[in-house]
Amino acid sequence: MILDAARTEFSAKGYDASSLRAIARLAEVDPALVHHYFDGKAALFVESMALPVNPSFLIDTILAGPREQVGQGLARTFFDIWDSPLGRERLVALIRSALSQEDAARMLREFLVREVFGKVALSMGVPEPQLRAGMAAAQMIGVAMMRYVIGFEPMVSASTDEIVGLVGPTLQRYLADST
Amino acid sequence: MILDAARTEFSAKGYDASSLRAIARLAEVDPALVHHYFDGKAALFVESMALPVNPSFLIDTILAGPREQVGQGLARTFFDIWDSPLGRERLVALIRSALSQEDAARMLREFLVREVFGKVALSMGVPEPQLRAGMAAAQMIGVAMMRYVIGFEPMVSASTDEIVGLVGPTLQRYLADST
Repeated sequence: MILDAARTEFSAKGYDASSLRAIARLAEVDPALVHHYFDGKAALFVESMALPVNPSFLIDTILAGPREQVGQGLARTFFDIWDSPLGRERLVALIRSALSQEDAARMLREFLVREVFGKVALSMGVPEPQLRAGMAAAQMIGVAMMRYVIGFEPMVSASTDEIVGLVGPTLQRYLADST
Repeated sequence: MILDAARTEFSAKGYDASSLRAIARLAEVDPALVHHYFDGKAALFVESMALPVNPSFLIDTILAGPREQVGQGLARTFFDIWDSPLGRERLVALIRSALSQEDAARMLREFLVREVFGKVALSMGVPEPQLRAGMAAAQMIGVAMMRYVIGFEPMVSASTDEIVGLVGPTLQRYLADST
């Protein structure tokens, strides 16, 4: 019931404009109950969208590795998940499920900027971390749309290694190098 | 009348799947007439969408310059146009005008891959030119959606120079460097 309310709220308002308070109101429960069961907005988003990975765990793992492999590590982790049968199914369902593909893409983009790439960029101390996180999210959502939703060749038949080899250095430059 | 038919066909089928023959049929004119008035599919697309720039001219100018400035040159040219009042108005109208934002984004992405970035990548002799053109288009459409259509901060208030400084090296690596 909370998860249903969360899906409705995130789909209607996007990630940034949604609040745990509004989700609680929609589910007709006390906000304290939402806080009790879910460890914040990001965790509730992950649960309600049935995402196959917890981004906090992902970020901790990548930030624990060498700085010069942050971009490659992020690209590798995302495309390994998205290219797996379950991950692809969830991602396409997520992008297709909301009001329109564009609303769903927006929701995912906001989530990736705030909870994934923005946190990496902040942790790396690059200038303009939110702007760089936006560039990284624009690239990743663009590739995901072409590879998984639209089916745009040759983006579909490229191997995971090829995609990671092209996108990894892009993420590295935006999020970890100050160039 | 040919332009109306072209807009209908491009919006309904996307850039790649549209043909001059189908546009002529829709406009109820002889295909030879379309060929007489328009110098190919790209030129008809530019005219029908009232784009403020002819991509052939753009590509020729950039390819005439030094190889190491191809990415910066492309980013500079696109964002100078998109950040100008007329260019922005046309771009947003283009993305908003078609059936849905996603269909319009797809049409623009296909056009950019086939007629702009694909031609640059081919001319530069990089491996997998269409895949690299797809990456470049994914990045550019993603930024355009966030900066001009969705209004995603801090992508909106970033200066043209900041955006070009971040996107230029990305286009350079995809389209002109074999890395």
